Amino acid sequence: MTATQPRPGRKPRGRPTGTSDTKETILTCARDLFARNGFTNTSVRAIASAANVDPALVHHYFGTKQQLFAAAVHIPVDPAMVLGPLRDTPIDQLGHTLPSLLLPLWDSELGAGFMAALRSMLAGDEVNLMRIFLEDVITTEVGARVDNPPGTGRTRVQFVASQLIGVVMARYILELEPFKSLPVHQIVETIGPNLQRYLTGELPASN
Amino acid sequence: MTATQPRPGRKPRGRPTGTSDTKETILTCARDLFARNGFTNTSVRAIASAANVDPALVHHYFGTKQQLFAAAVHIPVDPAMVLGPLRDTPIDQLGHTLPSLLLPLWDSELGAGFMAALRSMLAGDEVNLMRIFLEDVITTEVGARVDNPPGTGRTRVQFVASQLIGVVMARYILELEPFKSLPVHQIVETIGPNLQRYLTGELPASN
Repeated sequence: MTATQPRPGRKPRGRPTGTSDTKETILTCARDLFARNGFTNTSVRAIASAANVDPALVHHYFGTKQQLFAAAVHIPVDPAMVLGPLRDTPIDQLGHTLPSLLLPLWDSELGAGFMAALRSMLAGDEVNLMRIFLEDVITTEVGARVDNPPGTGRTRVQFVASQLIGVVMARYILELEPFKSLPVHQIVETIGPNLQRYLTGELPASN
Repeated sequence: MTATQPRPGRKPRGRPTGTSDTKETILTCARDLFARNGFTNTSVRAIASAANVDPALVHHYFGTKQQLFAAAVHIPVDPAMVLGPLRDTPIDQLGHTLPSLLLPLWDSELGAGFMAALRSMLAGDEVNLMRIFLEDVITTEVGARVDNPPGTGRTRVQFVASQLIGVVMARYILELEPFKSLPVHQIVETIGPNLQRYLTGELPASN
């Protein structure tokens, strides 16, 4: 398999070569491989190979693997914008910081595209990609920091995810009133202590 | 407009008359009217009239208006099975009782049909019916009991709804692991205190 940069002058049958076609091909291959093998087990090299381009071109177009994933699943928000600040947040403030970062993004214009993608994703097979993102990226990234007692980190993060996904559903998909119109700070301050309890509070064990 | 019981022996062109056709017609009319006018503003009489049947037949087939609504939006769980016990639960135990009632229902076979309906509902126009159910039935029914200080009841209930919807999403739609496999009692005991805080705790005001 030869990994080549696209050559716009040449147009072999059935293979897109123009820049936007190439980007689309990379995204399609990324979506396919992420869906089949998960986030961790999919390398940028494998995606580049499937798209028949150089890995450097993939990085050039899309940045990191996380950023490529976000583009592939139509998340119009750069995960680094959220995951970056979170890394610098003390864990006893994560419950407040998480919704403080996310709500304004979701409320913004950017969010509207995401919500449209979310609705169609929920109805179709792309729900698989959403699960992969939450399990492999978010759960792993944040879970390691709140893994106390050891083994609880993933569960803690997924309870947080459940509340945040519920906010998305209530505010943007179901558009419940008054929930839809509440100011961001009210939602942040209302759910913050509950998220914090999920992250660092004493929780019941599974047995 | 004549409200008549269906006469199985007679089959005028274009109007269903058999029992299952009549039921379908009633459900279609119910869905249509609930979606256009909401739950509160739609009477069983109006639905019967639209379906060209006697209101008594609607009650005979579907029971109360709430039960008809549940059937119309493909909720395979009788709302009375949940709303009934809730009425007898002291409000300081609602946070625990709510998920204790709902999780087993969602986990059951019955739930599977609901989840399929939910997925297609989220993608289409029936999302409107889901909002109506949450706003008109749940928010009104439970909100009145936790309206302290006055004016906060609806918001309190919708924060509870956001967490519960998030559990549905994480467990049945996204199927996050380990969340999907957690025992019911662990989810109940983990979210219970948070739901209780939404219902009766001190929450930040909107200003």
